[in-house]
Amino acid sequence: MGMDYSKIDQWILAEDSFDPVHLGKCEAVMSLGNGYMGLRSAAEERYVGETRDLLINGTFDRFDESEVTELPNAADVTAVELWVGGERFSLDQGSCTGYSRELNLKTGELTRRVEWTSPKGDKVGLVFRRIVSLKRLHDIALTVTVTCLEQPVALKVRSGIDARVTNTGTQHFTEGEKRFYEKKYLQLLETTIESGITFVVNAVHRFALNGQPLELDTDVNIDRRVLYADYTVDLKPGDCFTVEKYANVFTTRDLDCAGKTVAELQAQTLEDLKTSAALGYQALAEESAAQWQLEVWDRAPLDIQGDENSQFDLFALRFAQYHMRLMLPRHDNRMNIGAKGLSGEGYKGHCFWDTEIFLLPYYMFTDPEAARKLEEYRYLSLPGAHRKAKENGYRGAMFPWESAWLDDGETCPLYMGTDILTGTPIKVWSGIIEQHITADVAFGAWQYYAITGDQAFLDDYGYELIMDAAIFWASRLEKGEDGQYHINDVVGPDEYHEHVNDNAFTNYMAQWNLNKAIEYHDELKAERPELFQRLDEKLNLAEVYPQWVDGAAHIYLPQPTEENILPMDDRFMQGKEIDLTKYKEQDFVAGIMKDYNLEQIQGIQVCKQADCLVLFYLLEDEFPPEVKRASWAYYEARTLHDSSLSLSTHSVQAADMGELDMAYDLFRKAATIDLGPYMGTSDAGIHAASFGGVWQCAVYGFGGVRMLNGKLRIEPKLPKGWDKLQFTLMWQGQKLQVTATKENVVVENLTGTKPVTFTLNGTEIQA
Amino acid sequence: MGMDYSKIDQWILAEDSFDPVHLGKCEAVMSLGNGYMGLRSAAEERYVGETRDLLINGTFDRFDESEVTELPNAADVTAVELWVGGERFSLDQGSCTGYSRELNLKTGELTRRVEWTSPKGDKVGLVFRRIVSLKRLHDIALTVTVTCLEQPVALKVRSGIDARVTNTGTQHFTEGEKRFYEKKYLQLLETTIESGITFVVNAVHRFALNGQPLELDTDVNIDRRVLYADYTVDLKPGDCFTVEKYANVFTTRDLDCAGKTVAELQAQTLEDLKTSAALGYQALAEESAAQWQLEVWDRAPLDIQGDENSQFDLFALRFAQYHMRLMLPRHDNRMNIGAKGLSGEGYKGHCFWDTEIFLLPYYMFTDPEAARKLEEYRYLSLPGAHRKAKENGYRGAMFPWESAWLDDGETCPLYMGTDILTGTPIKVWSGIIEQHITADVAFGAWQYYAITGDQAFLDDYGYELIMDAAIFWASRLEKGEDGQYHINDVVGPDEYHEHVNDNAFTNYMAQWNLNKAIEYHDELKAERPELFQRLDEKLNLAEVYPQWVDGAAHIYLPQPTEENILPMDDRFMQGKEIDLTKYKEQDFVAGIMKDYNLEQIQGIQVCKQADCLVLFYLLEDEFPPEVKRASWAYYEARTLHDSSLSLSTHSVQAADMGELDMAYDLFRKAATIDLGPYMGTSDAGIHAASFGGVWQCAVYGFGGVRMLNGKLRIEPKLPKGWDKLQFTLMWQGQKLQVTATKENVVVENLTGTKPVTFTLNGTEIQA
Repeated sequence: MGMDYSKIDQWILAEDSFDPVHLGKCEAVMSLGNGYMGLRSAAEERYVGETRDLLINGTFDRFDESEVTELPNAADVTAVELWVGGERFSLDQGSCTGYSRELNLKTGELTRRVEWTSPKGDKVGLVFRRIVSLKRLHDIALTVTVTCLEQPVALKVRSGIDARVTNTGTQHFTEGEKRFYEKKYLQLLETTIESGITFVVNAVHRFALNGQPLELDTDVNIDRRVLYADYTVDLKPGDCFTVEKYANVFTTRDLDCAGKTVAELQAQTLEDLKTSAALGYQALAEESAAQWQLEVWDRAPLDIQGDENSQFDLFALRFAQYHMRLMLPRHDNRMNIGAKGLSGEGYKGHCFWDTEIFLLPYYMFTDPEAARKLEEYRYLSLPGAHRKAKENGYRGAMFPWESAWLDDGETCPLYMGTDILTGTPIKVWSGIIEQHITADVAFGAWQYYAITGDQAFLDDYGYELIMDAAIFWASRLEKGEDGQYHINDVVGPDEYHEHVNDNAFTNYMAQWNLNKAIEYHDELKAERPELFQRLDEKLNLAEVYPQWVDGAAHIYLPQPTEENILPMDDRFMQGKEIDLTKYKEQDFVAGIMKDYNLEQIQGIQVCKQADCLVLFYLLEDEFPPEVKRASWAYYEARTLHDSSLSLSTHSVQAADMGELDMAYDLFRKAATIDLGPYMGTSDAGIHAASFGGVWQCAVYGFGGVRMLNGKLRIEPKLPKGWDKLQFTLMWQGQKLQVTATKENVVVENLTGTKPVTFTLNGTEIQA
Repeated sequence: MGMDYSKIDQWILAEDSFDPVHLGKCEAVMSLGNGYMGLRSAAEERYVGETRDLLINGTFDRFDESEVTELPNAADVTAVELWVGGERFSLDQGSCTGYSRELNLKTGELTRRVEWTSPKGDKVGLVFRRIVSLKRLHDIALTVTVTCLEQPVALKVRSGIDARVTNTGTQHFTEGEKRFYEKKYLQLLETTIESGITFVVNAVHRFALNGQPLELDTDVNIDRRVLYADYTVDLKPGDCFTVEKYANVFTTRDLDCAGKTVAELQAQTLEDLKTSAALGYQALAEESAAQWQLEVWDRAPLDIQGDENSQFDLFALRFAQYHMRLMLPRHDNRMNIGAKGLSGEGYKGHCFWDTEIFLLPYYMFTDPEAARKLEEYRYLSLPGAHRKAKENGYRGAMFPWESAWLDDGETCPLYMGTDILTGTPIKVWSGIIEQHITADVAFGAWQYYAITGDQAFLDDYGYELIMDAAIFWASRLEKGEDGQYHINDVVGPDEYHEHVNDNAFTNYMAQWNLNKAIEYHDELKAERPELFQRLDEKLNLAEVYPQWVDGAAHIYLPQPTEENILPMDDRFMQGKEIDLTKYKEQDFVAGIMKDYNLEQIQGIQVCKQADCLVLFYLLEDEFPPEVKRASWAYYEARTLHDSSLSLSTHSVQAADMGELDMAYDLFRKAATIDLGPYMGTSDAGIHAASFGGVWQCAVYGFGGVRMLNGKLRIEPKLPKGWDKLQFTLMWQGQKLQVTATKENVVVENLTGTKPVTFTLNGTEIQA
C-alpha cells in the first residue's frame, strides 16, 4: 500500500490502496484549499484516527489562559455517510477492489474510486469528487456517485454540518443558531469563544438518479452542535445515484463581510449557496480549474526535462507550487502562512521565520503582489512586536517567534514534547530567546523591495519596519568585558542548542539589520526630508541612530577557525562528538530525543538543522568560498535534518559549491518530506517551508538564481539527470523566462516593457 | 447479532456478536460504576461512533452561557490499543470467532473474549476484563490477555490517559499538569472551566508473560491533553501476555478530598494507585464483588419462580437493581441521580421528578440510608429553588425541573429537538412551566418519613422543605372569575401538552402539598413550640399559613366526567382523535413528532406518558375504583409511552385493578426498554427511572405493596407465569421478607427488633 507515482506526468498524486493506520498522510498531502480555507482530505466516511480539519486562515482563537491562540477547527461539511443494505460503508469493513484516490494538482480536484462489497455481500461502485473553489473562496463542493452492482440495495445517506469537531480535544466554539430552511438548506452558526468570530456554515444537497434530478424527502435532525438529514433510496442493478453537496463558510473576520451584521451574513451566504448549487458541481469544478491555471500554472510555469527521475522532480516542484497556493492568504494582508499551511493543526496555524527565509523567495519571484501582503502583515503586527519587546525589557519591534493574529504578540506555547529523563513536558524557549526572527523579518522586507523595486512598500512599511527592528537590536546588545557587544542566551536557528551566546546567525543578521537601518537613515535624511521627519517622529531616530552606529561597529562576530569553520556559537565546537549514524538513518525525525534529553544534547556536536549555513546564502558575499566549503562539510556531518527547513539549505549550498550530486541527493530528500513514502511524517500537516525549500533547491540551487546586494544573479548548474530546466522570475515588474540546458542558458523578458540587468554566469547582461 | 439472554440464570447479560453500527447500546446497558463514577463500556480499541464516557457524579460544569451545566466527560483510561503484527486490532477488520461480551451483574465485572485473525493472517486470542470497584470508589482496573495462536507475532500496546474526549463536542476542561513518574506512573490533571473542579487521573501498567511478571521499557509521550506509552513484545505461539492497567480518579469536589491542596491530592492519589496495583486485579475484583454482595444482593434480595419467562423477569429486576446501584451517590448528599444515571450524556446528568416518583420507592424500601441522602440533596438545593421562584415572580421554594449542582438553580436547556415544520430547534418549556416537580419533591420527603419513620429527617429537613414548597404553591395560585384558585399555563407530566390550565396532577398534588403543610403547622404549633418557632422565623408562618388554608380550600380540582374519566387538563378531552396505531407499533419513540409538530400535537388526544394515572397511585385513596378504571382505559388507548416513565405506571395501575395479563404485558415492555433487543434505545444512556418503574411493577404491582396515608399495605396478585415472588421491604427500621405464592403470602420480620403493623390482603396484622 501507499503512494502511487505512476501518473505524475498527468499531474496526479495517487494513493493505490487504503490503509486505515495511515490516514494522516493523505489527509494532509492531498488537502484542498485556496488560502482562505484549508480542508484536509478526510474521507466522506469516518475512520478511527482521522483528523477532519477545516481551517479558515486568520480566525485565531484562544481556548483559555493555559493555551495559545490557534486556528479553530470549523464545522465539518465533508462527512457523507452511506449505509448500503444497512451496513455502514467503510473501507475497513467488507472488501474492496479498484481503489484509487487521486489529487489532480492542475485542477485542484480530489477523486476517489472504489468498488465495495459490504460484509453482507451487497456490491456498489463508488466515486467521490471534491473541490475547494479557487474562484469562490468560500465554496466547497463534492459529489458521491453510487452505482448499484449485481443485486438491488437500499441506500441510506446521512449528511449535514457537524460542529462537534475539535482541535485535538479543544473546543473553540460557542454553539450558535442551527436552522433547516425549506427542509433543505442547512445553516449552522458558531462563534469562537475568546476572539468572538462568528462562522456561518451553509450546506444543501441535490440528488440525481441515472442522470435525472430526484427530489428526496427526509427527516431533519437538529442536535447538539450538529444538524443533518437522512435520505434513503432503493437502487436496482445498474442504477447510478448521485449526491451533490454544496457548502460554504463565511466568518465575521472576512474582509468581504466587513460591516455586515450576522443576520445579513446569514441571508447573503444562503443566497450565495443557492447560486453555487444552481451552477452545479461540474461548472464549479471547471471555473476553479481555470483559476488554478491562471493563478498558478500560467503565472509560474516550470519545466524539467531529463531522465526518469527528473519527471518526479518536476512533479515535486508542482506539488510544492500547489501547496504554496493552498496556504497563501492572497485575499487578506492581515494574515500569514502557518508552518503547516492550512493542512493540519500542527503549530496551530502560527507563522515563523519560515515565511521570510523559505517561502518568500518563491512568492517574490512569481507573485510579488501576494508577497507584498505577507510583508504588510508583519508591519500590521508591529503592535504585538512592541508589546513583546516591552514584556522582555527591550525597545523597538521584537517580533514574535510564533505569530498569529495581529495583536496576539508572542504565541509560542510554553511546553512541547516529553523529557525522557524527568517525565515532564519540555519547556519551549523559542518564544523568549529565539530572537533572530526580528532580523529575518527585516531582511524579508528589504528582500521584497530589492526584488520587486516596490518603492511605495518601502515608503509605507519597509523603512519603518527595518528601523523599528534595529531599535530592538540596539536595545538587545550586551556590552562584554572585551568592550564588544554580545548577544547572549539565545536559541539560534538550530533548536538543539538553547541558551547559547553569540550565535553566528543571530549576530551577523543583527549587524545586517543595524547597517541597513543606518543606510536608510542616511539616505532618507539626505534625500527625503519629509519621510525622514515622519519616521523620526515615530521612532525618535535622533536618539536611536547613534546606538545603531555604535552597535553595528562593535558587535562581536564569530570568526572562522584555522580550519575555516565558522563556529555557530561560543559552545558548539567544544561539544562531545558521538556517532550519529543511527539517527541519520532513522525514517523519523528527532530520534535522538529518545536517547538524550535536551540538556544532554546541548553538550553534543549535533544539529537539528542548518544554522550558519542559512547565513551563508542570505549574506553570501560576506563569507569566502573556503569558509563556506569547510563549514558545509563540518556541519553536514553533524546535522540530523530533524527540521524540514534544513535539507534545502544544505542542498542550495552544495549546488553553489558545485557539488551537484550531493545537492541533488539532498534535494530529493527535501522533495520527499511530504511527498515520499514515509506515512507518518505529515500527520499534523504538510511542511510549508520545505515547499519553499524545494523550489529554492531548483531555482536557487540548480538555477543558480540569487538576489545579491539588490542585484539579480543567474548561474545554472544542472544536476546529472536533468537536460533542461525552465522557470520564470518576476524581477522589478518584468517576467523573465530562464531556460537552462547543460550547454547554454537563455533568458527572455516575457513582459518586455523595461529592460532588466542581471549577471549571467559572471557576465552582466540585459534582457 | 445482538443480546444473548441464555446466561441470565448465571446473572450474566451477554452480547453474542459484535455490530459496529450499534455501539451505544452495550456501552450503556453494560456500563460499570459505583455511584461515585459511571464508566460506559466502550471497548478497549476505538470505533467510529463510540461514546467513551467517564462521568463523576456532582462535578457539574457549564461550558458557556449558551449551555447549561452538565457532567463533564473525564479523561479516558480505558482505551488500550493493540497492534498485532502491525495491524490495529479492531473487530471491524480481519475476522473473529468466539466473540462474547458479558456483564456479570453479581460481581460487576465486564468480560470480553474473542479470537481474532488480523487482515494479514496473524491470529490471537484476546480476553478483556474490567471493573469499577464498589469497594474503592475511585478505582478502575482492567486486564488484557493476548494469547499467541499459530504463528509468532509482534505485539504493540498503546495505553495511557486521554483527555481529548468531549461531551458531544463540548470541552469542559482546561488542560493541567501531565507527568510520567519513574517512566511508569502516569498522572494527568484537568480543571473544569467554570466550576473550577480539578480532576486528578492516575494510571499504571503491569505486564506478565506466561504468568511471570515482565518489565517492559518504553518511550513515554506527552502531547496535548494526552499522555501515553507504547510497549512492544514479541510473542511465540502459545505465549500468553497480560497487560494489567490500574487507574484512579479523584476530584477537588470529592468529600474525601476536602481540604486537600491539589499537590497533596497528586501525591496521595499516586500512593493509592500504588496500593491498588500492588493488590493486583484479581484481589481488587474479588473485594469489589464481595461489596456487591453485601450492599446490593444481600440487602435487597429478590426471587421469582415460575415459567421460563419468569426467569427473564427476575433477571430484569436484578438488572434494574444493578443499575440503581451504579447511579446512586451513596457517598455524598450533595448530589442526586441523573435521568440517565452515569451511563451517558443524555439529560446532562440532571435529576428530575424521576428520583422522587420512580426511584425513591426502591431506595426507601431497601436502602433508607441512601434514600435519605437523596432527600437531603433536595434540602441542600433550596437556595437554587428560592432563586428560581424569585426569577419567576413567586415565593418559597420552586424546585428546578432539572437540577444539577446545589446552587445551579434551573438547568433545563432552552431548546431540544427539531420542529419539522419550521426547521428550527424546539423550545423546551419544562424549565419554566413544568411546575409539579415542587409538589413531587415535597411528596418524596413525606414519603421517606412515612416509610422509614425517620423523625430526625423531618425535624432537620422535611418540615421546612414541605412548608417552603407550600409557600410556592400559595404564591402560584391564580384566582379565577369563578372565585376558585387555578394553576394556568403549565406542563403536566405529559409533555405533549404545553400551556394547559388546571392540569389534574399538578392541582391535586399542589393541594396535597398545602394540606400537608397545614397539618404539620398545626401539629408543630401544638406539640413542638421550639421547632415551630425556628420554622416560623425562617418561613414567616404567620403570614403564609392563612394563604395555605385559603388555597387548599379553594383550589379548583378537575372532576371526573359522567363516564368517570378524570380530565387531565381543561383542553385534552376536546382534542382531535386520530389513529395512533402507527406510533404505538413503532420500535422507536416520539415517531409522532416526525408527522406533527408540537403545536399540532397540542390539539390531538394523544399522551406521551402517564399523567393523571401517576396521581392515582400517589394519592390512591382520593379516587374511587370506577374512576381509576375508566380513566385507565381512556388514557391507555391514547398514550404512546414515549417516555420511559409511563409503562410501569400503567402496569401498576392495571395490577391494582386485577388486570394481571395487561399488567404483565406492560411490565415486560418496561423491562425491555434498556434490556431488550432494540439497539438504539440506550445510546444516550440507560433510562434510570424505568428501573425504579420495573421494581415498582413487581413489588407495587404484583406484590401489591403501597404506603398509604403512612401505612403499609401488602396485597400480592401474581401474574399467570409466576409461582412465587419473594422480596424484602425496609419498614420503620425493620426488614420484612414477603414471600407470595398464588396460594398464600408469608411476611417475616427479619430484623425482629420491633413489631411491624401492616394490612395484608385487607386484614391488619403484625409481624
